[in-house]
Amino acid sequence: MLNQNYVKMCGQKSVIRELFAYGSKRAKEIGYENVFDYSLGNPSVPTPESFTKEMIRLLQEEDALTLHGYSPSLGIESVREAVAVSLNQRFDMNYKKEDIFMVSGAAGAIAHAVRAVTVPGDEVLTFAPFFPEYTPYINTCGAVLKVVPADISTFQINFDEFVDMLNEKVMAVLINTPNNPSGIVYSTSTIEKLATILEEKEKEFGHPIYIISDEPYREIVFNNVDSPFVGAHYNNTLTCYSFSKSLSLPGERIGYIAVNPACEDSALLVDMFGQISRGIGHNCPPSIIQLAVKEALYETSDLSVYETNKNILYTELTKMGFEIVEPGGTFYMFPKALEPDARAFSDKAKSLDLLLVPSDTFGVSGHFRISYCIPTEKVERSIPVFEKLANMYL
Amino acid sequence: MLNQNYVKMCGQKSVIRELFAYGSKRAKEIGYENVFDYSLGNPSVPTPESFTKEMIRLLQEEDALTLHGYSPSLGIESVREAVAVSLNQRFDMNYKKEDIFMVSGAAGAIAHAVRAVTVPGDEVLTFAPFFPEYTPYINTCGAVLKVVPADISTFQINFDEFVDMLNEKVMAVLINTPNNPSGIVYSTSTIEKLATILEEKEKEFGHPIYIISDEPYREIVFNNVDSPFVGAHYNNTLTCYSFSKSLSLPGERIGYIAVNPACEDSALLVDMFGQISRGIGHNCPPSIIQLAVKEALYETSDLSVYETNKNILYTELTKMGFEIVEPGGTFYMFPKALEPDARAFSDKAKSLDLLLVPSDTFGVSGHFRISYCIPTEKVERSIPVFEKLANMYL
Repeated sequence: MLNQNYVKMCGQKSVIRELFAYGSKRAKEIGYENVFDYSLGNPSVPTPESFTKEMIRLLQEEDALTLHGYSPSLGIESVREAVAVSLNQRFDMNYKKEDIFMVSGAAGAIAHAVRAVTVPGDEVLTFAPFFPEYTPYINTCGAVLKVVPADISTFQINFDEFVDMLNEKVMAVLINTPNNPSGIVYSTSTIEKLATILEEKEKEFGHPIYIISDEPYREIVFNNVDSPFVGAHYNNTLTCYSFSKSLSLPGERIGYIAVNPACEDSALLVDMFGQISRGIGHNCPPSIIQLAVKEALYETSDLSVYETNKNILYTELTKMGFEIVEPGGTFYMFPKALEPDARAFSDKAKSLDLLLVPSDTFGVSGHFRISYCIPTEKVERSIPVFEKLANMYL
Repeated sequence: MLNQNYVKMCGQKSVIRELFAYGSKRAKEIGYENVFDYSLGNPSVPTPESFTKEMIRLLQEEDALTLHGYSPSLGIESVREAVAVSLNQRFDMNYKKEDIFMVSGAAGAIAHAVRAVTVPGDEVLTFAPFFPEYTPYINTCGAVLKVVPADISTFQINFDEFVDMLNEKVMAVLINTPNNPSGIVYSTSTIEKLATILEEKEKEFGHPIYIISDEPYREIVFNNVDSPFVGAHYNNTLTCYSFSKSLSLPGERIGYIAVNPACEDSALLVDMFGQISRGIGHNCPPSIIQLAVKEALYETSDLSVYETNKNILYTELTKMGFEIVEPGGTFYMFPKALEPDARAFSDKAKSLDLLLVPSDTFGVSGHFRISYCIPTEKVERSIPVFEKLANMYL
């Protein structure tokens, strides 16, 4: 018979995807330019030319058999080495190539990390607001996701609730900074406090508690915002990175896990990731994509549009009376809705062809997410629509 | 604590990979040309030019944002459609795009298929000799792999043993034709007999028994060999395909599952595959690779070298007294070793710098696998070495 776990998942549609599908349909009816679709977190600036050039060079100049040949199961060695070197240069770390595991984006990275450090029944804590896809990654491993309620005044960590929820079954804490959906970057003091608490609890419980650090937005940090590299503050850190946002390659499924060399069992963990890939039949990210990102490790797409959009929206919406914790990075913003029912609020916005994701799916009520990875001219044209929406609550 | 299932897997090294690693090391010592490495099943002919051209065209002409954007979770629709059409044309089937799920090669396809149709404790039957990676795919799902002993006179199916092993817990039968490691293609009568038995047992047990048909070697079939399309003979067939061998792209991780539209729950199964991908964080194969293979669905690399190599090896080794069931396809051959201990035989060959994989890892004793995906001139130069080896047993 069919495995009912997956049958059940089929019924659980993503609110974000549904809204995006509605937007695409609506665009066909009234024109793309008339739908203000803030639903999906999809990069809106192209990949750097260097990536495209390197792809073409590889195809034209390299031996096809070698180029498209099997990648070693932990990733192509020269790529792992280059990733380690780039992290060491930027964050004053001491990764070796043996600490780097190439994987298909942050999704794969997180799912591998959770699978390695938990057995069914173990707990993973995360902090609201959180990316809803964490639930399937963790459930599929048989582990249990527990969500620490948000501190809605800052969207930093709610430490009181966190400490209450820590118990012997917690094997990992999954954090996401800069954060989807809030746009908030955890400060150095937040990370240090988190590290101190976890180190104490590791001693108390007698086992490691890993930080699984989900960092696809690491390169999208706005001017002067304090943005610590998590791995530098806590030994047992598994850094999960994706090139989806920094190089605008979400469809090419490429990222890595960097295991802090000071982590307990670091070499074993990387080997385990290889075995997990083998078991799920996923194997490596595509060889050519691995090789091409190697040449773009010190570059990003032109990410400045996201800060421009953030500034316009934050300024204008605040003026209208929206309560917003100002984002420090990403291309998201998470304002308070103008009524307690976020879905009703989102429906009102939808009636104006303004697509905003209600917050409940992120583990927080009464807010909404704006994904401002759209052209700036459209952001500007959306301001009067937000005004109309606000006026509905006067 | 770490998940001991994966820790244990780390200790289980692949005999094939170890032999290949030895070969690479040895080649550095005595020269690549002097090592006759028949260990690894890696294509030895380049991808067709049309694939390379299409990749370059996509990179030069398509909008980078769309090109590298997220693929829908079941695969890019135009690609699914094209795969369905190509299967219908070639095999007189009636797949719709909804029946096609794009996935990262046959490994991913099989792991997804098993995960969808089993729950932990269910059994999957396969037939010796079999590809040893089936074990991790199936174990990781929590299902149990049971191996039907080989019919070593033909390497078709040993039906007596098979029928004895069928029981209510068997949810799937995993077949691989053309076969790695024997090179044998299951005949139409084999497939029809298998289908008849399974249809009866489905009625008896009151649940579907899926054929998971692993077909990465489908395009490598030698002149005039009867090579039926499995899905045409059994409704509940999940066809697992990879472009690794046909287009010489093993590193690019691209394939599909085609669910026979006559299959019970066909639409639901494809949706479930999407949820499985989501849960393991794997998501889709890379967008650009999906789009490029779409333009190469009716092509293959120049695969003729494999038949040339087979003919030389089969003729010459048979002359020397090796007992071989003549391969009908693939780039493998599975002769009987010249002593009962396959590993001792392989070690003797290794002492002559002739790398042959002992058969035990494939579920059969006293044989060895030759992977003849190497240049023909090297095959020719290896014949005297095989002679030396045979002479050690005179």
